[in-house]
Amino acid sequence: MKHILALAIACAPLAATADPLPSWNETEAKSRIIAFVEGVTDTGSASYVSPADRVAVFDNDGTLWAEQPVYFQFLYAVDRLKEKAAGDPSILASDVLKAAAAGDMKAVAASGKKGLLEIVEVSHSGMSVDAFIADARAWLDSARHPQTGMSYDAMIYQPMLELLSYLRDEEFTTYIVSGGGVHFIRSFSDDAYNIPAEQVIGSIGKSGYMVTDAGPIIMKDPGIVFIDDAEGKPLAIDTRIGKRPIFAAGNSDGDFQMLEWTTTGDGPRFGMIVHHTDAEREWAYDRDSHVGRLDRGLDEAGTRGWLLVDMARDWEQVWPHAR
Amino acid sequence: MKHILALAIACAPLAATADPLPSWNETEAKSRIIAFVEGVTDTGSASYVSPADRVAVFDNDGTLWAEQPVYFQFLYAVDRLKEKAAGDPSILASDVLKAAAAGDMKAVAASGKKGLLEIVEVSHSGMSVDAFIADARAWLDSARHPQTGMSYDAMIYQPMLELLSYLRDEEFTTYIVSGGGVHFIRSFSDDAYNIPAEQVIGSIGKSGYMVTDAGPIIMKDPGIVFIDDAEGKPLAIDTRIGKRPIFAAGNSDGDFQMLEWTTTGDGPRFGMIVHHTDAEREWAYDRDSHVGRLDRGLDEAGTRGWLLVDMARDWEQVWPHAR
Repeated sequence: MKHILALAIACAPLAATADPLPSWNETEAKSRIIAFVEGVTDTGSASYVSPADRVAVFDNDGTLWAEQPVYFQFLYAVDRLKEKAAGDPSILASDVLKAAAAGDMKAVAASGKKGLLEIVEVSHSGMSVDAFIADARAWLDSARHPQTGMSYDAMIYQPMLELLSYLRDEEFTTYIVSGGGVHFIRSFSDDAYNIPAEQVIGSIGKSGYMVTDAGPIIMKDPGIVFIDDAEGKPLAIDTRIGKRPIFAAGNSDGDFQMLEWTTTGDGPRFGMIVHHTDAEREWAYDRDSHVGRLDRGLDEAGTRGWLLVDMARDWEQVWPHAR
Repeated sequence: MKHILALAIACAPLAATADPLPSWNETEAKSRIIAFVEGVTDTGSASYVSPADRVAVFDNDGTLWAEQPVYFQFLYAVDRLKEKAAGDPSILASDVLKAAAAGDMKAVAASGKKGLLEIVEVSHSGMSVDAFIADARAWLDSARHPQTGMSYDAMIYQPMLELLSYLRDEEFTTYIVSGGGVHFIRSFSDDAYNIPAEQVIGSIGKSGYMVTDAGPIIMKDPGIVFIDDAEGKPLAIDTRIGKRPIFAAGNSDGDFQMLEWTTTGDGPRFGMIVHHTDAEREWAYDRDSHVGRLDRGLDEAGTRGWLLVDMARDWEQVWPHAR
């Protein structure tokens, strides 16, 4: 009986008609999201989807948290590269590594994705997965964003947190499908988003199983096994989830194929793009940005029926702390 | 109120003290499993583990279903290779492919793992993932085991089905971690084991994202990306689940590292090996078998505290149909 009472109490807030998205303004964006969720969860509706198939996928950088002036994982990588190089300068074996350790971000940016990967690879290998996650967590606890002065994991979007909760309350399973490294994201995803490790899909570096005197460990080795970007996103969704999502959210052309794959399936589908239009509270960028470039998605969102969320117009607040 | 009543009814069977493992004989194996589960689910116990960390991993071939005379997926691959070759004999581009298509299983066996992979690769590529899964499902519906005459997906172990259900009832999440192909396993895992696609971890072939006139598809391409065997199992558990399991079940030395990784973590841990000792109802094999070889695991199970399940002694029945 105690059990039943506890359930009754737990269920009570669901029964109430509280606004599930209080940080969203009363614009079309909010009403389209709610109409979709109400349709797929209404057993009497032709749009009904069973809970097992309510799969929702979210990009991370620029969709759940900020990504300017550059991906936060990259800032972590550079900080760690500097530390490592202080102990052993010989690891700076290329121009881009030297530039990064010296803080010459222009030279690093000029090296493109290849340069970024090289820096991540050198700074993220040679330790166990457990040690890496603890180290990333410690970095997030101490590092501050150069412009906002905020913790990086405080620069998550309150409206998106509400959307994640809303979907989970309605029996969706919410996954992160990010170009970021899977271990880096796991260092904060459970705390920040309530998304557990097994629902984090990301890029994957090489790893090795090693039996030491203290027992087995999983080591992060140099080398990239899989880049979870562009076409890689639907491919990872296939091998990892094995179901076609019915809801996808992204913000850049790296999310285009994930949105396309999600929204071209049968039955009700929802694709949304977070458009960074808010130079005052966050940043304003799209076609010409060096991170989170949004070009094709901006052109095709309309014809494809994807919701273009205008951050300045549709979000009543951006960061959680302001609430 | 209707909601609460439904929950109360749903909870009733859990409250009853029905035997969760009726197809297990009353031997030490059964009591050890139950003692472990009761310990980790008892909030008053020092062994308590929260539901989020109750991760259980199961090998498939030889652990959840049979694997003699050879892995069932391989029999499927040979059947499909024959069909494909009838339409286009030029695909038989090597001796092992010719031998397989001609039914010369001795020559195939002599070619070892490399030969098996080549056959799987040729027969499993050049179609979409959806078409492949439908085809594998159709094969399972029509093909029959050469010795038992049973459907392959009826050759699953009733005691293991009960163990899976028991663990899930006790809020474990149950994963398959198999050397078999992820798409092949998904063609039956939900029906056979109640394990949904997202909890199937297996070997992975190359795939590609293709946009056709009829929309995007995911194609199975030739090539193997990841073999989920031996050291690969803990590595896949890390990238896919991101939590160290507390329960692992296998049957061969290909499961050794998964059992080692699982059982060397902190806190309560359970490792079990299904030992095929029952030539009458199933098969008897271990150290000298060409599939499911169990040698090191047999030597070390005792010192490592792993439960060695003696199929002949510990299982009251083997197949579900007999019940």
